[in-house]
Amino acid sequence: MACDKLWTNVRLATMSLKVGTPYGAIEDGVIAARDGRIVYVGPRSEAPVFDAAVSIDCAGRWITPGLIDCHTHLVYGGDRAHEFELRLQGATYEEIARAGGGILSTVKATREASEDTLLASADKRLAALMAEGVTTVEIKSGYGLEQQAELKQLRVARRIGRERPVTVRTTFLGAHAVPPEYKGRSGDYAALVAGPMLDAVAAEGLADAVDVFCEGIAFSPAETKAVFEAAKAKGLAIKIHAEQLSNLHGAKLAAEMGALSADHLEYLDEDGVIAMAKAGTVAVVLPGAFYFLRETQKPPIELMRKHGAAIALATDANPGSSPLTSPLLVLNMACTLFRMTPEEALAGLTRNAATALGLQDEIGTLEAGKRCDLAIWDIERPAELAYRIGFNPLHTRIWNGQ
Amino acid sequence: MACDKLWTNVRLATMSLKVGTPYGAIEDGVIAARDGRIVYVGPRSEAPVFDAAVSIDCAGRWITPGLIDCHTHLVYGGDRAHEFELRLQGATYEEIARAGGGILSTVKATREASEDTLLASADKRLAALMAEGVTTVEIKSGYGLEQQAELKQLRVARRIGRERPVTVRTTFLGAHAVPPEYKGRSGDYAALVAGPMLDAVAAEGLADAVDVFCEGIAFSPAETKAVFEAAKAKGLAIKIHAEQLSNLHGAKLAAEMGALSADHLEYLDEDGVIAMAKAGTVAVVLPGAFYFLRETQKPPIELMRKHGAAIALATDANPGSSPLTSPLLVLNMACTLFRMTPEEALAGLTRNAATALGLQDEIGTLEAGKRCDLAIWDIERPAELAYRIGFNPLHTRIWNGQ
Ligand SMILES: [Zn+2]
Ligand SMILES: [Zn+2]
Repeated sequence: MACDKLWTNVRLATMSLKVGTPYGAIEDGVIAARDGRIVYVGPRSEAPVFDAAVSIDCAGRWITPGLIDCHTHLVYGGDRAHEFELRLQGATYEEIARAGGGILSTVKATREASEDTLLASADKRLAALMAEGVTTVEIKSGYGLEQQAELKQLRVARRIGRERPVTVRTTFLGAHAVPPEYKGRSGDYAALVAGPMLDAVAAEGLADAVDVFCEGIAFSPAETKAVFEAAKAKGLAIKIHAEQLSNLHGAKLAAEMGALSADHLEYLDEDGVIAMAKAGTVAVVLPGAFYFLRETQKPPIELMRKHGAAIALATDANPGSSPLTSPLLVLNMACTLFRMTPEEALAGLTRNAATALGLQDEIGTLEAGKRCDLAIWDIERPAELAYRIGFNPLHTRIWNGQ
Repeated sequence: MACDKLWTNVRLATMSLKVGTPYGAIEDGVIAARDGRIVYVGPRSEAPVFDAAVSIDCAGRWITPGLIDCHTHLVYGGDRAHEFELRLQGATYEEIARAGGGILSTVKATREASEDTLLASADKRLAALMAEGVTTVEIKSGYGLEQQAELKQLRVARRIGRERPVTVRTTFLGAHAVPPEYKGRSGDYAALVAGPMLDAVAAEGLADAVDVFCEGIAFSPAETKAVFEAAKAKGLAIKIHAEQLSNLHGAKLAAEMGALSADHLEYLDEDGVIAMAKAGTVAVVLPGAFYFLRETQKPPIELMRKHGAAIALATDANPGSSPLTSPLLVLNMACTLFRMTPEEALAGLTRNAATALGLQDEIGTLEAGKRCDLAIWDIERPAELAYRIGFNPLHTRIWNGQ
């Protein structure tokens, strides 16, 4: 079999359920790629004879699918380090707001920044993700909260997808917060998002999906539904920030409308879990935000297992509630804080994260026909990826076969 | 003024209390080094004229003292990833013990490992620390629990100090746990530690300090005191693991005996804090172990502030309760979990960590006469070091002026 690249002497955590072992593991495996796709993955003993342009002896290292960070706010202006410091010095929320803190400080900085400035700061965060094996990243808008600034964020995200060796999926999150200009008029702003803003986003082809923050401090279920209906009319996928601070049943609403994922979910109830499992809507849990906000209410992992809802993980990289850019730390936090198993956690950054982006036929497992996105690790067992804290055993990252 | 190296166009977080600003900050500063020592640090406006062999324009970057990790168990055999996984799969402690888990698995692997094997695995962890700016690291024994294996751990630690570009302080922690051979006879083992084992350690000059784990599951205050008396008779400094799981008043005992530090301290009471402040015994808090063990009782930071006990931080890098090798993450955890300020946290990895090792005249702040150990950061303000999670903005690490 002709191939461009052949990796031999490897242990494979395919993460494919078809293999039938923990992690879909295959000891003494082989992977071959041609034109950026996997053409063979399996045990050496069953492999065909390869005619490989390049052959790499991996010395027994483990290979997993390239990691997928399915929920980030990677493109934004400024940072919130000063606010973090003020809060720890005892400043009240009012004092922080007066000192220019809070989400509006990020909105202001994002509106003022040029595309090049936004790209340069996002690039540093992206580099941290890629250094730990990320090959696909979702990037949301939501810090512009006005048409031009939202388009600008999405253009930068698209540019990253064109110019950097990583797959980018973009999500229009115009309904992230009510902008200051619409204070007390969230419905009017939601109508703007669902109308002219979404029209402009779609006309430029800037978004793969549309997301809404459904919460008391953001948008109601009715407003959320209106935005989703507009998104679906344009043929865009939908996602939701739901049940983070209270239970508005947003996840169920989104599931019933066919959402790819509902994210956060600390306050999700069993009814919501069942609706998600039934619809195939992925539960994206975000332990970084849980940790940083010192939440105590955990997402209902046990109920998700019981009803078979797929669980994904993500960094939620953002300046306000999760200034986190380490997917490996997300694995550890999912295990330590949410008591997920290392195997569940790794599935959350691979197989299930792919489904949360609608890319389950393309990436997320090591299977013939899928894109050859790999992470090659200096580890003795896959559980090490979740066990260690603040240590990066990545040996090589392969994106699109390269 | 003649110097080997000159760093200009820098912002300095000297961490010196003499400067009188937050972080001991000096904007538009200069540092000069000769023969590995700082010969000038201060504002450019007051700097002498330098005759520098090498001059480096730092483009406004921040410089802090090189970071000091004052409590680690960096040298050990094996890892505990499998045990981590078993526990999350619901295995009981008995099942884990039967599968070869627990501290005794690390003791077994450490006893069986050669010095070269121990060095190779410690090197990877050390590289992670150094990549985030660590220039001094303390390394404890305590996984041998028999004379030859304890000596072996300490020899490897000394070898790291000789062969790697980092300052190493070694601590003999023979009294870390009761070895299986002495089950139910902790007093007999403590006598062995305080007698022949300590004699051998001292004869080879392998330890700078002696540490004891004073806890119900380890050694009593009386046993601890006996080990400390033997250590002091040999002119060695003393340190203690105390008040991690209960309050045996070990920190007070150690403070009254002149200990450099008492470490963990979740259950420390006000009386203990006062004793430590009075004696100048540093309170070393270890948020990584707190996080990993899902502790809920926090060390009494507020009381430490009230009574003026110096607070240091460390990774506690170890396979069982803190498989953590990111000092920057320790800063974030100290702020997020213990509500320390970013400035307190950074002092905990610099100035106060130096005192916890008895090295306050040598390192820990940027001051003329001290060793030129620097961390140069791509940040806009020092609080960023604690604010971000899983991101390394280190630009350059300088050890001993190089
Ligand atoms: Zn989000
Ligand atoms: Zn320790």
